[in-house]
Amino acid sequence: MAEDLSDQPYAGRFADGAHRFALRIYYEDTDAAGIVYHANHLRYFERARGDMLALLGIDHVATLRAGEGGYVVGHVDLRYSAPALLGDALVVVSRLEEVRNSALVIQQAVMRDGQEVASGRVTVVFVGPDGRPRRQPEAWVKAYMAIRGAQAGE
Amino acid sequence: MAEDLSDQPYAGRFADGAHRFALRIYYEDTDAAGIVYHANHLRYFERARGDMLALLGIDHVATLRAGEGGYVVGHVDLRYSAPALLGDALVVVSRLEEVRNSALVIQQAVMRDGQEVASGRVTVVFVGPDGRPRRQPEAWVKAYMAIRGAQAGE
Amino acid sequence: MAEDLSDQPYAGRFADGAHRFALRIYYEDTDAAGIVYHANHLRYFERARGDMLALLGIDHVATLRAGEGGYVVGHVDLRYSAPALLGDALVVVSRLEEVRNSALVIQQAVMRDGQEVASGRVTVVFVGPDGRPRRQPEAWVKAYMAIRGAQAGE
Amino acid sequence: MAEDLSDQPYAGRFADGAHRFALRIYYEDTDAAGIVYHANHLRYFERARGDMLALLGIDHVATLRAGEGGYVVGHVDLRYSAPALLGDALVVVSRLEEVRNSALVIQQAVMRDGQEVASGRVTVVFVGPDGRPRRQPEAWVKAYMAIRGAQAGE
Repeated sequence: MAEDLSDQPYAGRFADGAHRFALRIYYEDTDAAGIVYHANHLRYFERARGDMLALLGIDHVATLRAGEGGYVVGHVDLRYSAPALLGDALVVVSRLEEVRNSALVIQQAVMRDGQEVASGRVTVVFVGPDGRPRRQPEAWVKAYMAIRGAQAGE
Repeated sequence: MAEDLSDQPYAGRFADGAHRFALRIYYEDTDAAGIVYHANHLRYFERARGDMLALLGIDHVATLRAGEGGYVVGHVDLRYSAPALLGDALVVVSRLEEVRNSALVIQQAVMRDGQEVASGRVTVVFVGPDGRPRRQPEAWVKAYMAIRGAQAGE
Repeated sequence: MAEDLSDQPYAGRFADGAHRFALRIYYEDTDAAGIVYHANHLRYFERARGDMLALLGIDHVATLRAGEGGYVVGHVDLRYSAPALLGDALVVVSRLEEVRNSALVIQQAVMRDGQEVASGRVTVVFVGPDGRPRRQPEAWVKAYMAIRGAQAGE
Repeated sequence: MAEDLSDQPYAGRFADGAHRFALRIYYEDTDAAGIVYHANHLRYFERARGDMLALLGIDHVATLRAGEGGYVVGHVDLRYSAPALLGDALVVVSRLEEVRNSALVIQQAVMRDGQEVASGRVTVVFVGPDGRPRRQPEAWVKAYMAIRGAQAGE
């Protein structure tokens, strides 16, 4: 239980070059059809991307606050395979699919017991305070390339 | 102001076969980047689809409660063109693109002053209480065909 | 239908000094217990407060952007009387209860067919960019006093 | 890292009779004022309560599904002390304050580095499928009493 004593938020982990992020489904996540409201999967994807960056040593919040830019979502393609239910233990698996000058394409899936619940591809664009795409920080691209290498070698 | 006196919720309107649904952006809709949180556009799409059905005389809530099935989202493809901001007056424009036995494909866009903010295609599947796709009610399909005709003739 | 043609968002109306704001309950609002998720009533309250200000001629978004301050919620006391359900037509009724130098106390209730669903008291504090309470703009206080007079005379 | 390998969701822990639940603030949590949207603290409270029950061995989801009832929120009193920001690491501390026949009163606070961000009292009522309050399961009350004893002895 030593890891609990510091009350540090959970941030997932990397395995085989993919980021794995477990989460529990609460009432806030569900709707009157008894399943997870479809838009909420995008929230889980965002949580997982944020923690993936943090584990890579990327402090995107500091960069945003320094006025040097931040990521906005540019495109989402998302398919739903099975309903997720109240109380479910899910895992978001995220893989960097493509690293461009000013954008990332991330393949993300919500899994339950090894079965896919939803999966999709999210493109995030790095933009300056003016809202225009700008080149991602060099150190970030290096971190992405390193993790892409880990994926390739899996 | 007569329409206000009854305190009936706003439900949008049809024009040229498309459903138009205006909405205001509140704090709840935005995030720390100062823009509408990307997943929320799916919520606006859902509001617009619900009211579009209501205006077509389709009581999908009664059908769900009667245990006869309901729509679940099967696929979303969504592109973001411009940020929406706190206080913005937006319009969701929804068009029925395809009517299948057990599914609808709806083209939806969020517009501001005639400019696109986000747009995409949402596939909803009619499923029974067992979660399996089932044939949509005949009367609903007729209503969809009628509105599709209005689009075609625009 | 003239009011629809401009596709202006619904903003409620004043009656007897109270602001009335109708809304429809969509899937996004509900949870797996089949009722409106409790925290969402605070979102409806915020929508109603925002539109109440707008109808009073107060452009709080412009003030925020000008770096002159904005409202933050300081206290909420909220009691739930009856569940709200998918498809419900509700009305948020908001009354200014108290106008202080740097705060407002607003009595807000969510009603359905004249019966209370939830009701409470929300205190919002006007704070500067430094997060400290500051005196509300004089013109705003005048507008609040005018509407309080309308309530008193009801 | 052994606890990660199973990809089990984080559920917090008990310390001195209080449940402690750490969480990270993502974009989804914030609003255009740059702070956590006020209603979201109720979502964190709900997450913490759900995991507190789970750690006490109470499977409230199974009880709900068995048609034997579930908790609904009856009353919330919530005070905001300081803004929470994007990227913040927060801890929700929850203490059982009162155990009644058909209700629980829980004192909950959102903390950051030992300082209070928001705190309040939430009353949840155990209701049957008919929505009426009913006696909480005996085993649950025993578990609550045990943890109340741990608090008393701290």
